[in-house]
Amino acid sequence: MPGSKSTAEQYADYKIKMQKIADVRNALAVLGWDQETYLPEKGAGFRGQQITTLSSIAHELFTAPELETILQGLKGNTTLDPVEQKNIILSTEDFEKNKKYPAAFVAEMSRVTNESYHAWIKARKANDYSIFAPALARMIELKKQETDILGYEGHPYNALLNEYEKGAHTGMLDTIFNEVKTALSPLLTQIEQQPAINKDFLHLHYNRDAQWKFGLALLENMGYDLKAGRQDVSEHPFTTSFNPLDVRVTTRIDENDFGNMTWSCIHEGGHALYEQGLPTEQYGLPCGEATSLGIHESQSRLWENNVGRSLLFWQYHYPRLQQLFPENLGNVSLDAFYKAINKVQPSLIRTEADELTYHFHIMIRYEIEKGLIDGSIDVKDLKHTWNEYYRQYLHVTVPDDVHGVLQDIHWSHGSFGYFPTYSLGSFYAAQFFAAAQKQVPGLDARIAGGDYQPLLEWLRTNVHPFGRFYTSNELCEKVTGKQLVFGEFLTYAKGKYGGIYGF
Amino acid sequence: MPGSKSTAEQYADYKIKMQKIADVRNALAVLGWDQETYLPEKGAGFRGQQITTLSSIAHELFTAPELETILQGLKGNTTLDPVEQKNIILSTEDFEKNKKYPAAFVAEMSRVTNESYHAWIKARKANDYSIFAPALARMIELKKQETDILGYEGHPYNALLNEYEKGAHTGMLDTIFNEVKTALSPLLTQIEQQPAINKDFLHLHYNRDAQWKFGLALLENMGYDLKAGRQDVSEHPFTTSFNPLDVRVTTRIDENDFGNMTWSCIHEGGHALYEQGLPTEQYGLPCGEATSLGIHESQSRLWENNVGRSLLFWQYHYPRLQQLFPENLGNVSLDAFYKAINKVQPSLIRTEADELTYHFHIMIRYEIEKGLIDGSIDVKDLKHTWNEYYRQYLHVTVPDDVHGVLQDIHWSHGSFGYFPTYSLGSFYAAQFFAAAQKQVPGLDARIAGGDYQPLLEWLRTNVHPFGRFYTSNELCEKVTGKQLVFGEFLTYAKGKYGGIYGF
Repeated sequence: MPGSKSTAEQYADYKIKMQKIADVRNALAVLGWDQETYLPEKGAGFRGQQITTLSSIAHELFTAPELETILQGLKGNTTLDPVEQKNIILSTEDFEKNKKYPAAFVAEMSRVTNESYHAWIKARKANDYSIFAPALARMIELKKQETDILGYEGHPYNALLNEYEKGAHTGMLDTIFNEVKTALSPLLTQIEQQPAINKDFLHLHYNRDAQWKFGLALLENMGYDLKAGRQDVSEHPFTTSFNPLDVRVTTRIDENDFGNMTWSCIHEGGHALYEQGLPTEQYGLPCGEATSLGIHESQSRLWENNVGRSLLFWQYHYPRLQQLFPENLGNVSLDAFYKAINKVQPSLIRTEADELTYHFHIMIRYEIEKGLIDGSIDVKDLKHTWNEYYRQYLHVTVPDDVHGVLQDIHWSHGSFGYFPTYSLGSFYAAQFFAAAQKQVPGLDARIAGGDYQPLLEWLRTNVHPFGRFYTSNELCEKVTGKQLVFGEFLTYAKGKYGGIYGF
Repeated sequence: MPGSKSTAEQYADYKIKMQKIADVRNALAVLGWDQETYLPEKGAGFRGQQITTLSSIAHELFTAPELETILQGLKGNTTLDPVEQKNIILSTEDFEKNKKYPAAFVAEMSRVTNESYHAWIKARKANDYSIFAPALARMIELKKQETDILGYEGHPYNALLNEYEKGAHTGMLDTIFNEVKTALSPLLTQIEQQPAINKDFLHLHYNRDAQWKFGLALLENMGYDLKAGRQDVSEHPFTTSFNPLDVRVTTRIDENDFGNMTWSCIHEGGHALYEQGLPTEQYGLPCGEATSLGIHESQSRLWENNVGRSLLFWQYHYPRLQQLFPENLGNVSLDAFYKAINKVQPSLIRTEADELTYHFHIMIRYEIEKGLIDGSIDVKDLKHTWNEYYRQYLHVTVPDDVHGVLQDIHWSHGSFGYFPTYSLGSFYAAQFFAAAQKQVPGLDARIAGGDYQPLLEWLRTNVHPFGRFYTSNELCEKVTGKQLVFGEFLTYAKGKYGGIYGF
């Protein structure tokens, strides 16, 4: 009987149960990592089955009545310390949310996700949105049902958004993306009037092994602990964590595109530094988990963009890079290189977008998702809406569906509410980085000297160690003294592109 | 209620439960593989915890009352086909055996295994058996208890032996190892009287990458399916299977010992071909599992020794090897190479022993294990007994404990009854290979031409596809027309070493 146990004993029981669930989930993550890196091709079928089995075990463990009893016993127990109390609150929230889903809904969602994923694959092959549309319509019906299951205040889309970014809502996003429109559009127009930047030299032949070594050296230089992680090759780069002492990144190498691997290394390195900075003693508990997707993305983008695409960063690394690739870069000045890696050019594909136009891609997806969920956009009209938005905001003409509405996998997976976290990540990154520059004396000089220790220490002190103890809003206010504002990103963008394009 | 279900439905339930357990066990195998190949060093602690959790989940699933009910419902049901009936019989046996262990015993065994493993590590570091002895004594007490828990006929050691080789017993092993003594000892003496063979050229510098490519080519050549497997590097070579379509081998490379990697590749390749040849439709069921350790080892040793150390094998591969390492082997004849790789030399360390003296190492361990379990050898005297046996049978003087009684990890793990399967493997291999030579017309000529397809097909037809449907004895009789006899190995050894040493 939990009632007869002391608080400490009950909390220990809670911890054991949660860590057991974490062990299963992390074993699943290992299976997933292996699947993307080393799995022999014929092994895929049984691997899928093994993943399904472990997923259902993790689900069973997390919905077990014993866990509910323990959580109820500890709820509101103020003799626990604040972190312990927060863990109980968050686990209870997670548990309750999990319980809301009727089994029939979960089964139907699984069926429709499978159906719509395969429809998307098929539609992409045929370059024909109409093949995807019926499955997507069914998916959206289910996502609407899900908003009712989860409950929400204001716009139904908030229910989905909160799955990825707790506390975010359409009010906040409308404000932010309105500023993207009103403030970034003129900046983009200004840039488009300048002479085009040459970046052809980034697409010469860059040897595979030399790229690999350079990328790995950057990761180490950033402070990524290779005794608590490793890098491997996969088709799509990702970061995965099995615990803060085993956080792995993957990358891909394109010998005809220098940027492909380098900034993917830095980006995933930012994610990995965050995971390595989570508290090991909170393993398996909410305060040992990343705050939110937006905060996770803030860490990858802070390193990728605010640091990794800065002039300061390349002041240090560019001479080394020139030595590695003298034939390609020997005659290219630091200034020309810096401009090339920051070239702004409206384009069709989100994942290839520059740091500035990227947010128009996200804004378009946000507007569409909101419209699909509240019914103001119909799946039938989606392609037209998409193409129209791209014409309007990015001044590009979508030539076909693969380069348009079929480009992202997210909707086929049922991930609605995910896209906005990409932009939030950049905006948090700008705000965090500005705070770090203010709070750490001589930060820029240290970065110019290839020394990221002060920046990493600042992140390890101010951002990484809290896990879900704070929401992203609370964390932002704690770190920067204010809630997320778009202005910090705008200031950063104006300064950077003003310098590059000379206005 | 199982009673209200049809046989087919009950069997389907059984299969689902068993495959779920297999999924967890195979996930464990992935965690284990990763641990030996790619795990960053700091990740070891949490990985251990994850492995413990999944192990306990697999154990819970396999001891669940629902499974027992299903097994009871299907027991003796003769409407099942013979393979299905055998699966039910074997799963019931496994289940019943599992149930015999009292929880207190399991906990104590886990504690003592941990203690004795660490004592062994410490003793090895200090090169002092007396550090290991007290923990080993405790382990042996538990193993004696285990023989009572499991039950046995004849010698108590049979209980432990049967854990690795069902149907094996001391009567059979006494006979076989007596023949090792009486028939191999004179052969060894005869060899020792011949001029020593030079094998220094095997210890020149052999480039790492060239070795890797050569080993991988051998694996492919043998018929190992690299789309259903892969090779990686680990400290100790091993084979692991997550299902017949994902069977992985590892190897190690020593640039100053050509033999180290090459025959480890062939050896593990033999294990892997067996696992790839198990029936996928029996995944998770006894008839989808390897027959026994002895039969598993027969497959590795058949390829490693009967094939991979034969003159026929190297007639084909040696010119290729010479081309790869012209500086080391350009002036070494095939005959000299063949003799070098088969040089017989009594030595101290089992894992470095040649194909012939190897069995004295095993015989010594077998005699010691039997004596420890029946009390005729005391742990206190073990070091003395060990050294005396080595003097007597291998004519070598053990200089210290690391090169003697502390060399193997097995006893510290509680693996008593395991060693004999190594010798059984060689003897089964000789008997199987002789049968294959009789049954496959022109087999030797095909091997001499580097074509192992007929041999592999024979193994895939006669040895691989049955899993545990037959015991090793039954399989041996089915394949070769008689039970295991030592004579086939002796004939093989006499022919081979007579040729090499010229008598």
